[in-house]
Amino acid sequence: MDEFGLIARYFRPLAAPGALDLADDAATLSLATGEELVLTKDAIVAGIHFLATDPLDYVARKLLRANLSDLAAKGARPAGYLLACCWPKGTTEDSIALFARGLAHDQDVYGIKLLGGDTTATDGPLTLSLTALGIVPHGKMVHRSSARAGDKVFVTGTIGDAGLGLKVAHGEAIGTSEASAYLLQRYRLPEPRLAFGMAARGCLLSAIDVSDGLIADAGHIAKTSGVSIILEAAKLPLSAAAKGWLSRGGSPAFLATCGDDYEICFTASPRAEADLQRLATKTNTQVTEIGRVDTGQGVRFVAADGAEIPVQTAGFRHF
Amino acid sequence: MDEFGLIARYFRPLAAPGALDLADDAATLSLATGEELVLTKDAIVAGIHFLATDPLDYVARKLLRANLSDLAAKGARPAGYLLACCWPKGTTEDSIALFARGLAHDQDVYGIKLLGGDTTATDGPLTLSLTALGIVPHGKMVHRSSARAGDKVFVTGTIGDAGLGLKVAHGEAIGTSEASAYLLQRYRLPEPRLAFGMAARGCLLSAIDVSDGLIADAGHIAKTSGVSIILEAAKLPLSAAAKGWLSRGGSPAFLATCGDDYEICFTASPRAEADLQRLATKTNTQVTEIGRVDTGQGVRFVAADGAEIPVQTAGFRHF
Repeated sequence: MDEFGLIARYFRPLAAPGALDLADDAATLSLATGEELVLTKDAIVAGIHFLATDPLDYVARKLLRANLSDLAAKGARPAGYLLACCWPKGTTEDSIALFARGLAHDQDVYGIKLLGGDTTATDGPLTLSLTALGIVPHGKMVHRSSARAGDKVFVTGTIGDAGLGLKVAHGEAIGTSEASAYLLQRYRLPEPRLAFGMAARGCLLSAIDVSDGLIADAGHIAKTSGVSIILEAAKLPLSAAAKGWLSRGGSPAFLATCGDDYEICFTASPRAEADLQRLATKTNTQVTEIGRVDTGQGVRFVAADGAEIPVQTAGFRHF
Repeated sequence: MDEFGLIARYFRPLAAPGALDLADDAATLSLATGEELVLTKDAIVAGIHFLATDPLDYVARKLLRANLSDLAAKGARPAGYLLACCWPKGTTEDSIALFARGLAHDQDVYGIKLLGGDTTATDGPLTLSLTALGIVPHGKMVHRSSARAGDKVFVTGTIGDAGLGLKVAHGEAIGTSEASAYLLQRYRLPEPRLAFGMAARGCLLSAIDVSDGLIADAGHIAKTSGVSIILEAAKLPLSAAAKGWLSRGGSPAFLATCGDDYEICFTASPRAEADLQRLATKTNTQVTEIGRVDTGQGVRFVAADGAEIPVQTAGFRHF
């Protein structure tokens, strides 16, 4: 089947009205008065960002969710996405069908559709690039660079599960079979915190989604904001599976650096804490205070007694 | 140098104000009231869409121009772009610098800037994906699917130069050294017809940019519009170099199928012809009538006596 046949069979059913059945080179998108567009783009490569053995429906869903997570950290409402797929020669039609089924599933979950893209072949590994579009009220996008000394630092959900899930994907058992399955699922299918991001937009002074690792991503906030951030190891929100792993000698530094969490790390005024907890409850999102913003620079990861915990890596570097 | 260092040194200087110095995961873009966004996305892979020996500044510029050509055929004004680069491991910093210089040059030519993107490594060939954003007045985007029987068919510029230029890139001489150099340049650096597309938007009943090949792309108009298109070989606008090649026994069917022209093929009412020629002159764009739209389906490529010229391929298939 050629490029046009593949698009017609597997991607046209995913298309937004503005995508003109993917029979055109371009799509249209309108904004209401007072709205502003938020744009984010990721590229992922088999063997670098995901395992060649990861099921392709999960790969599709994780790519989409990782970009929706960027939008969540901006307080944006998802409006659609464009997708370029470079398929290795010899990819079976079944593989492409599975990939498209994953997209179809998550399009329903998040209420978005495909706006356009490109499909081609490659002599290299499967390479995917997704551009996600979101919408915020004009001027209301949450930035990385606006943290202030005196803010508290918070994070949604739990941290470190995806890093442990990657160990499971590599064949390591972590605790019970149930715990391993839970962690593997957390690695494969992040949960972008869209409802919380949109609801809490006005309370978030700065935010980032945790993809490189909690400490590295807090470091991006610190660097672009010109402040320092102190994170307390004892306050990290952990799943039962991660707590079990820690109790058997695991390292908190691993959990705070392994990345792929797709939770929102954000800073807010101490005065906003009651509002934040109300919005967290309303959107069914766990929110935990994990540290504070100070003058200076860099990120310090500290134990309960205030001693700094050495951190070997500041997160993934894919290049 | 890691991903962050590369972005800071080579891509930050290219960034639009809404791109937040590329220090954020997302960019913003605003539209004025009554404007609508036009989106297009291409992925290209070394060895498939361009030659591994093509200079990287030209590769960057051609990728950008190919996407701007899509916007031109929609009658859109370019507003910015996002770019994902997957660099083969071992790519030198000089190569990345050359690539960025190409982008910088064409950003100035077209008055646009980089809105964001992603930079990563790959074990495969250089893979690039670009999402271009354009703006049209609401509801005014030119579609492929709106050709009507009775329209005339036109094309901008000249056809077939890029296909001959690819032969030159592969080491074949086409006519004089000067002719070969001209054709090679036409292969490497298309000229998106933005000024004409924007000016003539209201006269264009349907349009497409010629990337797959004139006959294949006219076929996309015919198929999505539910009409047939008759193209007259004798009317094809040709450069002096292509005319020379034809006179030495070259085939008009090659010129009409080789693709990569990035001219606009469009249909318009015969009554619009005077307006079109006025706008063509105003925007310094050659516009040539090459055929007509009829009922039925498919594309017929005909000689001066009306006999159909056999066409072996309906354009590139990269998959």
